[in-house]
Amino acid sequence: MNIGIIGIGRIGKIHLINCLSHFRQVNVTAVMNPSLGGQEFARSLGVTSASADAREILENPDIDAVLICSATDSHAEYVEAAARAGKAIFCEKPLDLSLDRVRRTLDIVKEYRVPLMLAFNQRFDPNFADVRQRIQSGMIGDIRSLHIISRDPGPPPISYIKKSGGMLMDMTIHDFDMARFQMDCEVTQVFAQGSSVVSPAIAKAGDIDFATVMLTFENGATALIENCREAAYGYDQRLEVFGSKGMIRTENPLKTTNSFSGNEGTLHARNLGFFMDRYAESYRLELKAFFDALQNNERMPATGDDGLKAMEIAAAAHKSIQENRPIML
Amino acid sequence: MNIGIIGIGRIGKIHLINCLSHFRQVNVTAVMNPSLGGQEFARSLGVTSASADAREILENPDIDAVLICSATDSHAEYVEAAARAGKAIFCEKPLDLSLDRVRRTLDIVKEYRVPLMLAFNQRFDPNFADVRQRIQSGMIGDIRSLHIISRDPGPPPISYIKKSGGMLMDMTIHDFDMARFQMDCEVTQVFAQGSSVVSPAIAKAGDIDFATVMLTFENGATALIENCREAAYGYDQRLEVFGSKGMIRTENPLKTTNSFSGNEGTLHARNLGFFMDRYAESYRLELKAFFDALQNNERMPATGDDGLKAMEIAAAAHKSIQENRPIML
Amino acid sequence: MNIGIIGIGRIGKIHLINCLSHFRQVNVTAVMNPSLGGQEFARSLGVTSASADAREILENPDIDAVLICSATDSHAEYVEAAARAGKAIFCEKPLDLSLDRVRRTLDIVKEYRVPLMLAFNQRFDPNFADVRQRIQSGMIGDIRSLHIISRDPGPPPISYIKKSGGMLMDMTIHDFDMARFQMDCEVTQVFAQGSSVVSPAIAKAGDIDFATVMLTFENGATALIENCREAAYGYDQRLEVFGSKGMIRTENPLKTTNSFSGNEGTLHARNLGFFMDRYAESYRLELKAFFDALQNNERMPATGDDGLKAMEIAAAAHKSIQENRPIML
Amino acid sequence: MNIGIIGIGRIGKIHLINCLSHFRQVNVTAVMNPSLGGQEFARSLGVTSASADAREILENPDIDAVLICSATDSHAEYVEAAARAGKAIFCEKPLDLSLDRVRRTLDIVKEYRVPLMLAFNQRFDPNFADVRQRIQSGMIGDIRSLHIISRDPGPPPISYIKKSGGMLMDMTIHDFDMARFQMDCEVTQVFAQGSSVVSPAIAKAGDIDFATVMLTFENGATALIENCREAAYGYDQRLEVFGSKGMIRTENPLKTTNSFSGNEGTLHARNLGFFMDRYAESYRLELKAFFDALQNNERMPATGDDGLKAMEIAAAAHKSIQENRPIML
Repeated sequence: MNIGIIGIGRIGKIHLINCLSHFRQVNVTAVMNPSLGGQEFARSLGVTSASADAREILENPDIDAVLICSATDSHAEYVEAAARAGKAIFCEKPLDLSLDRVRRTLDIVKEYRVPLMLAFNQRFDPNFADVRQRIQSGMIGDIRSLHIISRDPGPPPISYIKKSGGMLMDMTIHDFDMARFQMDCEVTQVFAQGSSVVSPAIAKAGDIDFATVMLTFENGATALIENCREAAYGYDQRLEVFGSKGMIRTENPLKTTNSFSGNEGTLHARNLGFFMDRYAESYRLELKAFFDALQNNERMPATGDDGLKAMEIAAAAHKSIQENRPIML
Repeated sequence: MNIGIIGIGRIGKIHLINCLSHFRQVNVTAVMNPSLGGQEFARSLGVTSASADAREILENPDIDAVLICSATDSHAEYVEAAARAGKAIFCEKPLDLSLDRVRRTLDIVKEYRVPLMLAFNQRFDPNFADVRQRIQSGMIGDIRSLHIISRDPGPPPISYIKKSGGMLMDMTIHDFDMARFQMDCEVTQVFAQGSSVVSPAIAKAGDIDFATVMLTFENGATALIENCREAAYGYDQRLEVFGSKGMIRTENPLKTTNSFSGNEGTLHARNLGFFMDRYAESYRLELKAFFDALQNNERMPATGDDGLKAMEIAAAAHKSIQENRPIML
Repeated sequence: MNIGIIGIGRIGKIHLINCLSHFRQVNVTAVMNPSLGGQEFARSLGVTSASADAREILENPDIDAVLICSATDSHAEYVEAAARAGKAIFCEKPLDLSLDRVRRTLDIVKEYRVPLMLAFNQRFDPNFADVRQRIQSGMIGDIRSLHIISRDPGPPPISYIKKSGGMLMDMTIHDFDMARFQMDCEVTQVFAQGSSVVSPAIAKAGDIDFATVMLTFENGATALIENCREAAYGYDQRLEVFGSKGMIRTENPLKTTNSFSGNEGTLHARNLGFFMDRYAESYRLELKAFFDALQNNERMPATGDDGLKAMEIAAAAHKSIQENRPIML
Repeated sequence: MNIGIIGIGRIGKIHLINCLSHFRQVNVTAVMNPSLGGQEFARSLGVTSASADAREILENPDIDAVLICSATDSHAEYVEAAARAGKAIFCEKPLDLSLDRVRRTLDIVKEYRVPLMLAFNQRFDPNFADVRQRIQSGMIGDIRSLHIISRDPGPPPISYIKKSGGMLMDMTIHDFDMARFQMDCEVTQVFAQGSSVVSPAIAKAGDIDFATVMLTFENGATALIENCREAAYGYDQRLEVFGSKGMIRTENPLKTTNSFSGNEGTLHARNLGFFMDRYAESYRLELKAFFDALQNNERMPATGDDGLKAMEIAAAAHKSIQENRPIML
């Protein structure tokens, strides 16, 4: 399988290295990056064709699939172009910050009948994937509730905040997708509260940095989500599902399994640093899932519609905060 | 200090035994119980005066304080009588199921200026008390959120449900009080969802058996509470506070500290059985707090007003579920 | 059942309170204590007969059983007197520091055919008792090894050390008994190393404060024991059994179930303070076992022979350290 | 840096992949493997020079360093040849099963003054490395004891056992090295017990499958080691160090951080499968340490002498079991 990668930034580099190290049936035929840095990075790893022109990928008939890892505001455009070129598509989330544009882009993808996977990498985290598998096996019976706590170690720069679409669309969206993924059904109502408790600069930029959300699902279950842009003790990503037959909890992976017992008590290690460490394996496994689905001609394990649904929940949560009332979906 | 105990049922017996075993400065002068069983239980422990007539306690000038452990619908009446008799009062919660009656009773208590402690025993659980102490010490900085999960091992009989005032007033009320206790400020808004997922008989009796509540507090923080009348894995009482400087979590005490590692993984023991085990120490410590406050002439650590506030939150939560909207307080 | 208690010191007080609080079928008829303090303590709890003369207990025909909680060097004498008086006997360990005297005392107990329980309280700790029950159930298959770590929070006063019979006879003896209790068979060989790492004063008094012991058992399994008179992080009492089908581990009970996550990692509470807290329940349960065995006319769950065997292991360990070689039993 | 790899078996493949994926400053110039399989594996990864003749590596003047991953009985020969050829050497343990041969080989390495690193990979495990770092920092004060439990999930084939040099030389040797690594001083006495409890076939082959060892160190501290060729619950590699200021414990990494709470209690995941998973990162980090030491011209972090010392301890342990007495070193 020949692939091209559009965008060799932070996440594009991860995918490139994973392709080279772990998927030897996959050949990285060409990469595109607007600036020289990304091109040179790819060349140093033996990718001979590296340019600033995406057409060298999109118009190359040998290339079967495209990984789109460029800036968010170019995702929709490249997805549409790749669809028109008949390529299978793996795209970083979100497709676009505008719901309308996302719907239009998905229409085009459907028209050209190309496979599209949206990179909800947390679905492929071995812990979270194991939770879903156990739920599906009936181990906890009927789901009654889901709790997700998701806290970043610290806020991103204000420049990032301003282009992010807001915390709900940028950060909580992972939890909205995770909740749908675990519940395996749709949200019917959203109630949310949001505030700025971390940084006045974020409030000044018109965004929130703390949110709590209560989602009601078709199956009658409730999901309680808390999000914060900062946690003094580091990256915190936990999930807990409670059902009629039991409960499953996911704890944070730690830096080491060591503890020190001293006068104050017993001290365990900090959580793994941030998403690059915490989700390293999920980045590899989501690519594997993409390549496997392509090879076996199976349904993509995270689709454009999944992205759309999560965005709709985020939009409803935003409205709920604005109007201080539950929003139906 | 001479005390009388009104009501020698399940909880009255616990208090009686604790008085005899742990508070030797306290003399149980008389007990009252409507039926013979409770009277005989007290006599077998050496309490000579045991009758079915509360006046033997209320009219005995030697008795300084009264523990009211009778049926809920008699609490207000006994509290009022004890106030009029000038006794210090320790009363099981709730004072009454009617907010109006509670307000009237508290007015009488104030009129007669007797000390009244309402038995929110969970405040005295060493784990939860330690959490509050750490919050007050500034250890976690400004509180951002509080998560409480409270699940019973199984539902009570329908006969109990019918007289309970409903799950919010009977069970969640502990969590409303706990949230106020930890936050150390008042609730401004309540949003709740409730359903019946455990037992159709509970639904038929007009009650819910599962609820999720989002409380907003004066300090800007949010509390997320989940309650269920049943948990397949046993009694579950957890709390987690997140602040600007860190997080405190309370896990469930277990039956043993043993684990078994076998082919399936490592199995740890079940949680302690139910509130009689889980909160055994809190029952002793709340009595100690009552006696200490009396002796030192200090403010009671849980007052009638605390009971009233928790009931007002429960009433607002009920209304929120009925009208599917947030309710201001 | 009428009982007398000889010796109202630290441990005698615990037994007295437990008798009064938890065993209402048991009547504490009389207590003996050489000094007034213990006598007054007993009187304040309603024990009317309290004197400095043990004959008031031993010659009272109404008394069925005697708890011997006096100084170690009087145990053998009182046990022999109680045996001659036909009383059932519960005696704190050890019977005596001299193996010869212990054997003579046990001969007298056998001659008079009175029941004798030796107070190896750790056998009745719910965690350790649960371990044994699981081993007996076959859960871990054939035992391969047992690891015991037993560390005190700090050393006792030198005056205590000097009368203690040495660390092996005073402290490690609990672990020798625990190993026999779990293995359910006898030790065939002892190899030990001992040193003084905690306190030069202990070395000067001719004792060790740190020891490691390797025991070989009849069933082919090995026990590894470590003992230290001091641990900077507090009282540490752990046990781990490994068998052909799995492993059971006992962790230390902690002061609270709370943890604090901050910049350094996650800090859990210290272990329970010392044996008075850690083994509080075992003191109650060993008395229950004694009274139950008496009432049901059953074999005592910890016998004088158990005490003798543990002392023989301690003596062999001492010899092993002296001669730096394994000692057969 | 140009390197050659001699032996592309299980461990050689791991090193080859790590070189290609993680050490891009390192160029794998040539590999040698006696059979075609390993050669083809290397070619598929882009290594052009792959043959059955080690001279193509040893006589290639461009090659700076050699990784020796061939069968154990060829290690000494290749190390000597590489030393004579002036190459830096990274060699899998052991250098040889004969202490004499190891000493002769080390003499030759010293004569030719080439750097030699012996692959004690567990030293580079992030957990164990962190333990050492903390010990060195003084965090636990003076070491009093070290406990190592090391149990394999299941025994290797008898064919492997027969060529292994015996369990002490093949498996426990890792723990002897780990104990020296953590203690940072030498062993003075060894006492060991060994038996066959797992497999009669292993006993028939003249080997043991279970051992307990008590090591005494120059610093006065004791190490207690337990080894077993089988554990029903999977691979178990734990370490615990106790010092005057506290204790450090290393727990096993688990397959997931998930737990399931149900009727039986709370079940946590199994340990990571076997050394390939458990020590995956240590294989990468030991290579990094080798390349770093070469580049910075520093002392190798695990030397031939370290291998020799560990073998001497293993030989003493063997003798101790044979003669049932402590052996001085």
